[in-house]
Formats: sequence, C-alpha cells, structure tokens
Amino acid sequence: MEKTRIAVIGLGWFGEIHCDAIAAIPSFELAALCTRTATRLEELGKKYGVSQLYTDYHELLANPDIDAVSVVTMWDQHTAPTLAALDAGKHVFLEKPMAHTVADCRLICDAAATAKGHLMVGHIRRFNPRYAMARQEIAAGNIGKVLSMSSRRNIPAAWTPEILNKIGPIVGDAIHDTDLMLWFTGARVISAYAQTVDLRGLKYPDVGHTMYRFDNGATATLETVWCMPEKTPFDIDERMSVIGSEGFVHIQDTFPNIGICTKDGFRSPDTTYWPTLNGVTTGALRDELSYFADCCRTGTPPTIITPEEAMAALEAALAAEESAATGQVAHL
Amino acid sequence: MEKTRIAVIGLGWFGEIHCDAIAAIPSFELAALCTRTATRLEELGKKYGVSQLYTDYHELLANPDIDAVSVVTMWDQHTAPTLAALDAGKHVFLEKPMAHTVADCRLICDAAATAKGHLMVGHIRRFNPRYAMARQEIAAGNIGKVLSMSSRRNIPAAWTPEILNKIGPIVGDAIHDTDLMLWFTGARVISAYAQTVDLRGLKYPDVGHTMYRFDNGATATLETVWCMPEKTPFDIDERMSVIGSEGFVHIQDTFPNIGICTKDGFRSPDTTYWPTLNGVTTGALRDELSYFADCCRTGTPPTIITPEEAMAALEAALAAEESAATGQVAHL
Amino acid sequence: MEKTRIAVIGLGWFGEIHCDAIAAIPSFELAALCTRTATRLEELGKKYGVSQLYTDYHELLANPDIDAVSVVTMWDQHTAPTLAALDAGKHVFLEKPMAHTVADCRLICDAAATAKGHLMVGHIRRFNPRYAMARQEIAAGNIGKVLSMSSRRNIPAAWTPEILNKIGPIVGDAIHDTDLMLWFTGARVISAYAQTVDLRGLKYPDVGHTMYRFDNGATATLETVWCMPEKTPFDIDERMSVIGSEGFVHIQDTFPNIGICTKDGFRSPDTTYWPTLNGVTTGALRDELSYFADCCRTGTPPTIITPEEAMAALEAALAAEESAATGQVAHL
Amino acid sequence: MEKTRIAVIGLGWFGEIHCDAIAAIPSFELAALCTRTATRLEELGKKYGVSQLYTDYHELLANPDIDAVSVVTMWDQHTAPTLAALDAGKHVFLEKPMAHTVADCRLICDAAATAKGHLMVGHIRRFNPRYAMARQEIAAGNIGKVLSMSSRRNIPAAWTPEILNKIGPIVGDAIHDTDLMLWFTGARVISAYAQTVDLRGLKYPDVGHTMYRFDNGATATLETVWCMPEKTPFDIDERMSVIGSEGFVHIQDTFPNIGICTKDGFRSPDTTYWPTLNGVTTGALRDELSYFADCCRTGTPPTIITPEEAMAALEAALAAEESAATGQVAHL
Repeated sequence: MEKTRIAVIGLGWFGEIHCDAIAAIPSFELAALCTRTATRLEELGKKYGVSQLYTDYHELLANPDIDAVSVVTMWDQHTAPTLAALDAGKHVFLEKPMAHTVADCRLICDAAATAKGHLMVGHIRRFNPRYAMARQEIAAGNIGKVLSMSSRRNIPAAWTPEILNKIGPIVGDAIHDTDLMLWFTGARVISAYAQTVDLRGLKYPDVGHTMYRFDNGATATLETVWCMPEKTPFDIDERMSVIGSEGFVHIQDTFPNIGICTKDGFRSPDTTYWPTLNGVTTGALRDELSYFADCCRTGTPPTIITPEEAMAALEAALAAEESAATGQVAHL
Repeated sequence: MEKTRIAVIGLGWFGEIHCDAIAAIPSFELAALCTRTATRLEELGKKYGVSQLYTDYHELLANPDIDAVSVVTMWDQHTAPTLAALDAGKHVFLEKPMAHTVADCRLICDAAATAKGHLMVGHIRRFNPRYAMARQEIAAGNIGKVLSMSSRRNIPAAWTPEILNKIGPIVGDAIHDTDLMLWFTGARVISAYAQTVDLRGLKYPDVGHTMYRFDNGATATLETVWCMPEKTPFDIDERMSVIGSEGFVHIQDTFPNIGICTKDGFRSPDTTYWPTLNGVTTGALRDELSYFADCCRTGTPPTIITPEEAMAALEAALAAEESAATGQVAHL
Repeated sequence: MEKTRIAVIGLGWFGEIHCDAIAAIPSFELAALCTRTATRLEELGKKYGVSQLYTDYHELLANPDIDAVSVVTMWDQHTAPTLAALDAGKHVFLEKPMAHTVADCRLICDAAATAKGHLMVGHIRRFNPRYAMARQEIAAGNIGKVLSMSSRRNIPAAWTPEILNKIGPIVGDAIHDTDLMLWFTGARVISAYAQTVDLRGLKYPDVGHTMYRFDNGATATLETVWCMPEKTPFDIDERMSVIGSEGFVHIQDTFPNIGICTKDGFRSPDTTYWPTLNGVTTGALRDELSYFADCCRTGTPPTIITPEEAMAALEAALAAEESAATGQVAHL
Repeated sequence: MEKTRIAVIGLGWFGEIHCDAIAAIPSFELAALCTRTATRLEELGKKYGVSQLYTDYHELLANPDIDAVSVVTMWDQHTAPTLAALDAGKHVFLEKPMAHTVADCRLICDAAATAKGHLMVGHIRRFNPRYAMARQEIAAGNIGKVLSMSSRRNIPAAWTPEILNKIGPIVGDAIHDTDLMLWFTGARVISAYAQTVDLRGLKYPDVGHTMYRFDNGATATLETVWCMPEKTPFDIDERMSVIGSEGFVHIQDTFPNIGICTKDGFRSPDTTYWPTLNGVTTGALRDELSYFADCCRTGTPPTIITPEEAMAALEAALAAEESAATGQVAHL
C-alpha cells in the first residue's frame, strides 16, 4: 500500500494539531511543512522529524514528491495557496471556512472542478459520529419534513482573545451548524437575521445569535457565545436539535458525556474532535483526514463534503454577519 | 385563621386545574364557580361540592361573600371580568397572558393601581424553584452583566390542535420566557424579530422562533415548537440559559429529571407545574396560588409579579408576532 | 381555620431549618422551642419571635397550648422525647432515622398505635415530586414486577466532618433510598451486604455501598459517598433507577436540572428539598410538614408514611451496617 | 506499506461485525474466513469477496499467507484456536472474555509470553475515548486515591434471549467494567459478592449486581441488567463513576448524547462502539482493531491491554458469579 505524502501549509495552533493527526494515520506520510515564520518551521520540523521545510508555498508545490497538502492558513489567506495547489495537481484539504468571500469560494470551486487533485473542505462536524448518525436518520426520512432547528456552540472566553481579532463567532463557529443544517435539510438559506454583543472590545463581537429561513420553509436559530465565563466547566457546550413533522434528533456533545473533577475544578473535556488518547491524536479530525487519505490513495472524489456545499455555508454565515452589522434582515 | 373565599371564572381545562389547586390550599375556600356553559358549571359544581354557581360573572361579583376571583377565561376575554372584579373590590388572580392588547393591559394596570383588591397575573414560571433560584443568583450579581439568553419551550402536537385556533406559540408560550428574561435582567425589550412555521394549517402557526434585543445590550433567542412529533418523550422540553460576563445559569426542567418507561413507551411527565401526587394537585401552580392566598389574607400587595411586568411581557411577545407577520424587525 | 400550635425539640442546623419551614406554613404557628443549650435557645427564640422557650422537653410537653412537636434531636436521642410527647397527647413529627435501634422503633410504634396524637417520621423523599410520581407509576403496575433497583446519594466532604462523628452514610443517607425501595416494591428486605471505605478516620466511614435482597426476589444496590471531593459541583448527586419486567423509572434530581456558574465555580444547588426562594423556605420539607399540619388539623392519621414503614427502613439499614462491620451477609 | 493479512475465526453476529470493521481499515487485508457452518462461510465469503474459506481452523493456521487471526468463537471455545494460532506464529486478536476458566487464561498467557506473534484481548472499552480520557486523568493522579466506583451497563431484553443461553450478564458484560476498574486503579480484586435475578428462565439469570473489594481498599458496585423492558429508549445505558480523594470522573455514554425520535418511538443508538456511518463501520471497534493492526505491522507488543490484565478481569467476574451461586462472599 502506497502512502500519500502530505504537507501542511500554515502552522498555527491548528496547523500543529493537523500535523499530530496526520502523524497518527498510517496511510499518510507527513512529508513537508510550510510557514513564513522560520523559527516555528524549524521547531515543528524537529517535532515531527520532517526535513522538507518551506517558507514559501510555491516552492513546496513545485516539489513533485508531494501528493497532497493541508491548508491551515488564516481564513482570509486560503484562496491563493489553494488555487496554486490545485493548479500544481495536488490533492487539497482546506480548513473551514472555505474562504473569506463568496467570490473566492467561487474561484476555488471552479478550479477544483477541473483540477487533477481532489479538494475537500474541513467541515469536521460531518465526522462527529452523532451528526453523521443524525444525517442518516434524516436522509432516510425518519423524522419527516424538517421544520425547526436550533444549535448551540459556546466556548470559553479564555480561548478567544486572539481569535476574535481574526474572525467572529458567526463565520468562525456558527458556520459549523450552518453547514450541518444545510447537510441535514438539503435546502438553501434564503434569509439571515443576526444580533451580536460585544463584551471585550476586540475586532469582532463576542456573541452571535443567528436566525435563518430555509427555502423549504424551515426556521433555525444558532447560538454562538465566544466569551463563556472563566469557570465554565466545558470545552464546548455543543447541542443541536432538528425537529421534523414526524420525529426529531437531539444531540448534546462533549457535555455531560464526561465530567472530570479535580483539585482545579470540574470540567468536561473534548473527547470527540481531537482528543489525545494513549499518546495519539484521535477523534473526528483523525477520521476526517483519514477519509481524505483514502480519497487520495484511491483517487475517489470526496463525497461527504463537496466544495459547493462549503461555499453555501460561507454564503449564509456572511449574510448573517451582514445582518448583524446593518440591523436588517439579509436576503440571499 | 380566616379562609379567603375565592371563585373561579372560566372553566375550561385550565380553569378546572385551578379548582384542583385551590382545593388543595388550606387557606382558600373554593366558594363559587362561573362559566357560561350550564352543563359544565353543574358538572364542576358537583365535583368540587360548590353550590354557588354563576353563568354571569356580574352576578358573581355582586356577591359580598366572595373575597377573590381567579380569571381563567380565554386570553382575549380577560379584560372585562378583570376590570369588573377590581371594580367590585375583589382580589384578582388573572391567568397569563394578561390581555390580548397592550391597551387592555394599560386599562387593567390603571384599574389595579387604585383598586381595593390586589391583582396578580399568573406568570407561573416565577414559582418554578429553578427559575426562582436563578433569579436570586442573577439579582445578587453572581453572573455579572447578562449578555446572551436562550430558551426552549416545546410541547407535543397532540396538545395543541385546539389551542392553536385560539393563541399562537409566541404569545402563548414564549411569553413565559419573555417574562423570565425581563425578570432576570430588569431590562426592556427594544426590538423583536421572529419567524414562524405553519405545519397543520390551523389559525396560528405551529412553530415560533423569536429574537429579542434588550436595552442593556443583551440578545436572546426563544424557541417554541407546538408540534413536537407523536412519539416525543416529554410533556415539555424546557430549557433556559442566561450567560453573563462572569457566570451563567442553565436550567433544564422536566426532562430528563424523571424518565418513565412503560409498555406504552418512554416519557418524562411534568413534576414541576401541576402534578397530581398522592391525590393532590401540587407544584408551581399550587405555590403560585398559595402565595396569592397569603397576599389576600394578609392584605399585602403581590411583589413577585406586578401588573406592569405582565404588561411588558405581552408587549414584547406581540411585537414578535408582528415581526413574524411582516418579515421585518419590530421596534418597541 | 384553627392554626396548629407546634414546638420544635432539638435546635441543631436541621432543627433551625424546621423552624424556617414551619414559619412558612400558614396553618402552623411556631409556638415553642426546646434545646438544652440556653444561648442557642435564646438566639432562635429571637429569630422566630417565639417566647415559649424550654431547656427541658418535659416542661414543654406539660404545656396544654402545644398541639404538636417536631423532634429533631440526634438520632440516638429520638426515643425518649417521642414517647413522652405521644404520652402527653401531642402530634409528633419525628425526623429520620426513626431511632437508633429496632427495639426503640418497636417501642415508638407501639406507643403511636394507641396514642391520641399522630406520629409521622420524616422520610422526606416521599415528598419529592419525582419519587411520588415514580411511586404512582409503580403502584399502578405500569412497570410490571420490580427486578432491579439502584440508587446514588452522594454529598460533599465539606458537609460531613461533624455528621460523621454522629452517624454514618448508610443509616444516615442510604436509609432514604431503603425507604423509597420499600415504598416502591411493598416488599421486605431479607438480606443485606455492605462495604465501607474510611478516608478521614472519623467515627463512621466515609463511603457505604449496600446491596439488598428483597423477599419478592428483587436486588438493589445503594451508593452513599459522604466525601465527594472539594470541587464537586453539586449539593447532592442523587439518582435512582427502578427496573421492572415491563418498564422502568429513572430519576436524577438536583443535578443537572440547574447549573450555576459564578466566579467561584460551577455548582448545582438544591431546589428540591429546602431551597430558600423569595425569602421563604420551600420544597419537599415544606410540603412534608404541610401534610403533617393538615393531618393535625383534620385529625387524619398520616398515610404517606407510617411508623411501621419507618421501622422497616431502619432495620434494613442497620443490617447493612452490621454486614459492613462483619464482612458477612446479614440476614433479616 | 505492507498490509497485514488477517483471518476471522468464528462468524456469528459479532464475527461478522469484525469483518465489517476490518474491511474499513486500510492496513488490514481480510484474507480468510473460518467457521464450521458451511452455508454461513459461503455467505460471508461472498459478502466480503474473500476466497480463502475454511471450516477447520487448523487448515487456516497452516496457511503461511495469513499474518494474524481474530478469534470470535464462543467464549468457552477460545482456548484451542488461540493456542493453535499462537503456536502457528500468528498474531492473535481474541474477543473477551479471554476464556471460560482462569486455568485456560493461564495457558493462553503462558503461550503468548513465548509466542512469535502478539496476543491482544478485545477489551474494547479501553478504546472508548471517554474511558481512555478518564484513565489518563486517574493515572496522572488528578483525582487522588480511588475510593469508590460504580458502573451500569444495561441492555434491552430483546437482544439477549440467545446470548443468555451462552453467557450471563456478569461474565458477559460486567467484565467490561471490571476490566476498566482494574485499569483505572492498578489494583487487584480481593473479594466479590453478587446477586442475580432470573426473569425468563434461560440458562443464565437476567440481572447481575456485583460488589468488589480491591486491595487498595476501594469498593465498587457493578449493575448489569440484560432484560431492559421492550420500550427502553437506548441501546446501552452505560455509566461509570470513579470517585477519589481529590476528584472524580463521571462518564455517561450513548445516552442521552444522541436522541432520535421517529414514528417508531424514541431511542438513543450507539455512536461509540461500532456505528455504521457513511457506509463504513467505525467507532471503538475500528480503533481497537486498527491499534492491533499497527502492532502487527510494526511488530510492537500491544500495551493498552495485556493478556495478564484480561485474565485478572475474568478471574474477578467468575468469582462474582460464584458468589451469586453460593450466596457467600467469594475471596480471591
């Protein structure tokens, strides 16, 4: 069995977690790393025993030994390396949100449509087994016609002071639930209304509440609070309900499935997305990248997430942000 | 100790539950009943051993033996009997929503301000011990400044086909959460946006999603689904979160505090609002009416709920319904 | 309506809570207090505005103005005041456990059988609406034949360093679940096996695990941990499952029905047993004492808990403690 | 990368699930199948496209192309094929319980100690991310000294009428929790007391309650009910608490993390152990077998579960069954 030789472009905290997850996947070889910060590059090269180190992704992409890349740059710096990688014939795993504008998403989708390599956007929640199970039930018609959805995705304030200068909670996190709702319903968002609350005076507000109308008539609310108080006992308070005419699905992940109380207090750590267990990064991120590895190895286009779907999620989330800024309902 | 002699005006399903609760309160005497339907009047007179039976509330109110009335008529028929009862010097317990227009609420508030008797509107959730505890914590400043609230109050479709021809889920149920949010924050609602979904073609839509902005900057979403599918395992799926700058409160009532599985399936019955236990109606309704009984007996104006507060909740809920009808944000 | 004039004998922390609850019940008048500690007597006399203060319960019982007493002395000092009060013709509310030996329970039961006043032992869990609802379902045959039960009743270590020098977790707390299991099944305990763990070297061990066999064939395990670690986020972790041949009941009380996060951490306070809400002591203790007040006022013997039932619970719990001491199964 | 060529011996319902899981692991090749039932062999050979089909495991083991075997025969038929496979130099994945006697476990352990291939017993719960996270916390000393443990592992009656003629709930299921408790504490079980309840008159009783004493002083209770009533809304009601001197871990898996309500009722399906998602068998079984695949490929002995640990779990569970049979405490 041939290993797929993959490089990671963008080595922030999440790029490093990508490296950890890739290192735990037998059919991947972590073959190269790329970031503009030379010290970081050297540090992670040592950590993962990777000798092909690049500060310029163009040089990386020129390397014919590389089969695939994972793009984990800032969300507003996704377009250029992704287009270049597709152009170079590489398979591309691109972190969400796909890009920072719908126009850029369009460029990427078009490039992917004709590229030699496959493109998959990292809507990781589709690899959470609870959501995947929910999708199966809904797709099988077991809850009837979807009428009403609601989601929560709230995270501690301690995690977000830097992130909130780069991206806000709606495009940064409600996009997960937006994507899931689109996946579950197969519908389109036709309007968005959102309200934000600013607590800390960072570039983006701390709280986003979003309401969508879908073209099948369904309504949805999405709660994203990025300033959960200091003593909040969970990594993520993550819930979703999908109510149909004949049934419903309710998901409550990471809390209170596990509760750990120590001298330092009570908390519910993540065991779903990228927990390190027995020294190995596992969870939905590992499963998502494994699926991508299988697609690369077998030459099969990814079907669990398509580029067009990732674009639709961004479009809706950007409309919600626009609504929050104007105070008006945004129509798509 | 003198018993307060109380009459119930309006004897639908909930008027009967009022009678049950009153019968279980030692300091009340259920002294008279009033409804326009003679057969119903006779039936409940027998059930409760009450001999003073009226089809006309004016006659009832002319009876000097009656100290207090509980008004449980349709929500759009609250105003006349309430004004008449206040005018007759009776204490009045008035079911929520206070009235069907803000103008009528204003009339009732004004009448109550100068009446001999006390007026209390039945915002029963304030007597749910979880919300009362939450209020104490928030009022003590323990969660800091309130930033974000969300609520759910979803009930089975089987309960609502008749109700939905009389009142919709926003004014009918989200008003509970509206009232609680106003109580918790001490703020005013300044705008409302809502979306509804119609499933069964009844007079009012089956689903309401509401978003409020408060004058302290907080945002809130309220979910009310009155068409939970047939096999839904709970009487009410009721949750509320109040997130502040320094803490939060989360409440999850009736589900899954108790789960009962029988040959007929799994369900979570109400043990909070008006459960019948050991043959006696108990819960928040009994506590609410007991509090009202104490106010009557001791001549103390009710402070847990004031008429002005009840009016504010209706005003916000009506604005949400208006928004759902127009598709525009409603400003208050 | 005549008020029942009641006195509290024993004014430790829980005697004071009894006073609080009695003060909130309109049909009770808190008429006298009794404790051997003169300073405590004076302090609580002032707090409750009670002028009839006794250091000797015999003098109290000689007062013909007193209709009823609540006995809240140490569990091994229940017998004498209870027998004396019954002998004096008073109604007696007696805290659980009924007494510290089965022989004493027998004496009390016999005295109660012929006394003028009524005796009710404070098995408060029967007034928790969740357990009362469960009992109704089970008694109606809705879960079939009871096969297997399990319970948890764990409390913070911070509460117990003094209590553990007076009573252990099995007789002190598992007796609640013992009583409920007896109530639910209508069966007798025929054997008990228990294991304890000692953490802090107090008079009684910190942890008790008990297993019962009932004469209807059912098995049960009861977990009582009185040393939950410092950061434990709940007042009580209280659960019970009753599994029958055709259904089951599951109860999870106080946690996570309400969660409150503040600067000091996350916790789930009691809202079921004796929460103070709106300045008033409410909950199951208030309901239990109200029920006793009704029995006193109407001259009706209490049926929700009988003296013989209270004795059976003690007998089983003492057998479990004996088993823990000997390492052998104890047969009843 | 060389694929490990693995065969499955024993093709009951769980052997088939093994095949499904193996088929989803890129580094495994499902190379051969073995069962005594020729029709079943042919059926599964077709399903998985496997042409090497055996009714005699000796012939299978003589095939030098096979690197590893998974033994999924009845628990009392584990010893012979396992010893033969080890003798033949194969890697062996052996389903739990290791064997049906401690003596057989001893034989297998001794054989494994000198074998060329690696032996791993399928204590799958160690690959549930919640338990793995718990283990890390406990092993790091974060909850202090373990004092008290309790577990529940209850499954629907509909699943068990055949199984209960082959194995009972203590050795069949409490062994999972026994193994986890041994893993968490690093201690030994020194005594066991258990009670069973028979509902359906099958070979083994339907209900088992077990209490262990560990040599570090800890106590534990284990609940296993294999006759959860017809309308039970979950695949597994699975919980564990580990309470230490300085903290605790609580796990509640599969229920209510996901709830699905359809026309047929409410249920909580398994998303942890072997859910089929996107057409692929995933979950802890896939992760467990992947880990074994890695061990085979890299020649590394499995450390997450050792043969001696699997033997210790069986020894304790058999002692509990003995106690249930004799009514006496069993000492190890």
